[in-house]
Amino acid sequence: MEKQFEKKEITKKSEDFSQWYVDVVLRAGLADYAPVKGCMVIRPYGYAIWENIQKALDEKIKKTGAQNAYFPLFIPERLLKKEKEHVKGFSPELAVVTIGGGEELQEKLVIRPTSETIMYEMFSKWIQSWRDLPLMINQWCNIVRWEKRTRLFLRTTEFLWQEGHTCHASHEEALEEVMAILEIYQNLYREFFAIDGIVGKKSEAEKFAGAHATYSYEMLMPDGRALQGCTSHDLGQNFAQVFNIKFLDKEGKAKMVWQTSWGLSTRSIGALIMAHGDDQGLIVPPQLAPIQIVVVPIIQQKAVNKNLETKLMKIKETLKDFRIEIDKRPEYSVGWKFNEWELKGVPLRIEIGKKEIAVNKATLVRRDNGKHFSVSFKNLAKEVQKTLNDIQKNLLLKNSKSLKENTREATDYQEFKKIMANQKGFIKAFWCGHPQCEEKIKEETMATARVLVVGTEGKEGKCIYCGKPSRGKWIFAQAY
Amino acid sequence: MEKQFEKKEITKKSEDFSQWYVDVVLRAGLADYAPVKGCMVIRPYGYAIWENIQKALDEKIKKTGAQNAYFPLFIPERLLKKEKEHVKGFSPELAVVTIGGGEELQEKLVIRPTSETIMYEMFSKWIQSWRDLPLMINQWCNIVRWEKRTRLFLRTTEFLWQEGHTCHASHEEALEEVMAILEIYQNLYREFFAIDGIVGKKSEAEKFAGAHATYSYEMLMPDGRALQGCTSHDLGQNFAQVFNIKFLDKEGKAKMVWQTSWGLSTRSIGALIMAHGDDQGLIVPPQLAPIQIVVVPIIQQKAVNKNLETKLMKIKETLKDFRIEIDKRPEYSVGWKFNEWELKGVPLRIEIGKKEIAVNKATLVRRDNGKHFSVSFKNLAKEVQKTLNDIQKNLLLKNSKSLKENTREATDYQEFKKIMANQKGFIKAFWCGHPQCEEKIKEETMATARVLVVGTEGKEGKCIYCGKPSRGKWIFAQAY
Repeated sequence: MEKQFEKKEITKKSEDFSQWYVDVVLRAGLADYAPVKGCMVIRPYGYAIWENIQKALDEKIKKTGAQNAYFPLFIPERLLKKEKEHVKGFSPELAVVTIGGGEELQEKLVIRPTSETIMYEMFSKWIQSWRDLPLMINQWCNIVRWEKRTRLFLRTTEFLWQEGHTCHASHEEALEEVMAILEIYQNLYREFFAIDGIVGKKSEAEKFAGAHATYSYEMLMPDGRALQGCTSHDLGQNFAQVFNIKFLDKEGKAKMVWQTSWGLSTRSIGALIMAHGDDQGLIVPPQLAPIQIVVVPIIQQKAVNKNLETKLMKIKETLKDFRIEIDKRPEYSVGWKFNEWELKGVPLRIEIGKKEIAVNKATLVRRDNGKHFSVSFKNLAKEVQKTLNDIQKNLLLKNSKSLKENTREATDYQEFKKIMANQKGFIKAFWCGHPQCEEKIKEETMATARVLVVGTEGKEGKCIYCGKPSRGKWIFAQAY
Repeated sequence: MEKQFEKKEITKKSEDFSQWYVDVVLRAGLADYAPVKGCMVIRPYGYAIWENIQKALDEKIKKTGAQNAYFPLFIPERLLKKEKEHVKGFSPELAVVTIGGGEELQEKLVIRPTSETIMYEMFSKWIQSWRDLPLMINQWCNIVRWEKRTRLFLRTTEFLWQEGHTCHASHEEALEEVMAILEIYQNLYREFFAIDGIVGKKSEAEKFAGAHATYSYEMLMPDGRALQGCTSHDLGQNFAQVFNIKFLDKEGKAKMVWQTSWGLSTRSIGALIMAHGDDQGLIVPPQLAPIQIVVVPIIQQKAVNKNLETKLMKIKETLKDFRIEIDKRPEYSVGWKFNEWELKGVPLRIEIGKKEIAVNKATLVRRDNGKHFSVSFKNLAKEVQKTLNDIQKNLLLKNSKSLKENTREATDYQEFKKIMANQKGFIKAFWCGHPQCEEKIKEETMATARVLVVGTEGKEGKCIYCGKPSRGKWIFAQAY
């Protein structure tokens, strides 16, 4: 038997989550290990998910008034060094070009680990007057951060992302932007990824190097660990000062701008895989699925006959507004196809055979719950749309339920430790904000402060570790 | 007077073409020089043109069955060195990473100058059987080729492009792909860029390093020089052999694949700028224009009144299917706005003032020929569409005419030299194919063999330089 005919076995999610993840990524054709250490190849099926993410997010970003642009991959060392916290944070992760055109370079060039410094050098040139504000730039590009331990999609030396960078006349306006973008990310994760999460502010230890404050959307993975879905930074005037980004206000006075930056990367695909998959493989929410519907004609390894062919063409026409694939390959068995498309997580399967043609109904099979049901050909488009909507909703509901069930309040540290040792997940607790307590908690439980939950900033309580008076509830978790 | 209020002066195209080009790129906000030698920043207005190109081309590419993917930026030196001609061709242009994560790397990593080698290492793993063919992959990414002398868009150390890579079971099928893609590029240039050109095969000296044959679309710029618009390579089995890309055919025999690769880059934007612009600045064909229509209310540096505001909103609604901008900024004069949007090359201007409202007609002004005319509000959408179509057609017609007028046949070398010294442009001539003649012609006239015109391969004549019997007519020109 040839390789292609074997059923692609994958490890069960319930048995070995980590191995299941690798199996799904490789066998569903999402990505592959590259011949460069720490890098991956995003294969067409994985890249098509990224394209769907890009399309949805790009539209939302453009609606805010931001415009896409492209800045160089290379950052001269002197620019990167301008903001001290920034360079300190990124130095251990840099890839550096020292040879160009066969010659040793006078000044080393760093491959962008993020583009603040190269962009802001230009912003200081472009911004002169209040008329030039707000300046709102977004960039889709590749990023390099040297990693020792890598995992497909979740942590790779090179990854793809969008990074937004804005300049405003006031801190208030900049903060509005930080929050508006955070809401866009939250909506994207909920409506497209079908992944619920918690919006909040990062601790000092976890904030972006050079930022005044960092906000994120934290999601809970099925193994009880947290994944940061995006970041939105209030940069204050830290970069504006070192890059001298000034504008003349309406009264003709020179002022410093207030800045934000924000990003979402291909790491999000890792979250998507982990959140919804099962023992059979991937489950892709319809909104992001490269193939929303697969039609499998019920024939045993032979060519489709004329009658069935006509029916298939009609169905393709009826469902032309969906991303649909008709799998007529005679060299594969029906059972093999079912497994294959389940592994690839196509949300809806349509089966058409003699039986279906006889009763003038198609058999639909949902990937999220395995349910089979019949739909008359006449109502097919409407029922398919309804079913896809329902799958999308159901995936989010399931995920929300799991998030709720695995978010626990802890009022004393013994309880905290017990939860983190057994169930893991999110723990909501007061924390005084001191790095020392955070460090101790990490040492003893491997959990870190993920975010200060938005809306809890005023609440008073006692620090889960030291017992001192605290303000605001934090989410703690072991993190990816 | 503040900087923003000054009319942005540019050098006249007719007086100094080279300076005009730089002025247009910078002042129309297409791009800017970056703080890294040889690199540029593509600003939002320039990037929006690239997005329109991408959208049009990506759709055409996907229709052929090719799928997008993403491969690493880094290529280990050992991979690049596998195909000898390939590494010889690209060696002088490489940027090399020697430091990663603070440590000297064991193996140097080359930044991709093109992705044949990194992709084909994966292809050899992915392709096993005839069922895996054809494999058709496309990638949108950044590329680095170290350049000493750079020009905005036309030649920069980093640029953006798409690169397609396909594997086939036979040479015939691979050749069909090479030609099908060449036709896609030709149609893109004609229908979207409104630039005519000549399709042909490259000489041995100009073909892609490692290819069996290279085809391209050569365009003629207004200064009489040629610009290569794209390339489509027949790779034969050169790479398949060194990367060991084999498949089992239907009879179970192991065979080597036949490959193609093809690309189009942001260089094409340079052609767009040069081909259509005039003394007033840029002219962007409607199909690629980020802004197809600008509406300028006729008011002198004051806010728009309620009556006019209502009219503007109605127009925006009527023309919502177009890429439209309404310039209501009170701080700029009408005259300043006219200049600004002409400089930016917006194909159609609509003027609305008291006069227009009184007669219930809008004033339309075409960027390509400066013609003013009135259109009743009732027919606006229809007339705008018709006018944009007409502008698109007219730009191509003008360009085709210029290409015809500046493509001359030469039958003796004296005539050839005279043309190249005076009018420049394209010269059609027989050439024996010997590198020595090509080299001599280059030395004496600065012209090189651009392409062997498709369809002339069988024609017999005498080499323009040595007089020996030759087959096929070549286009000669000085090139960018």
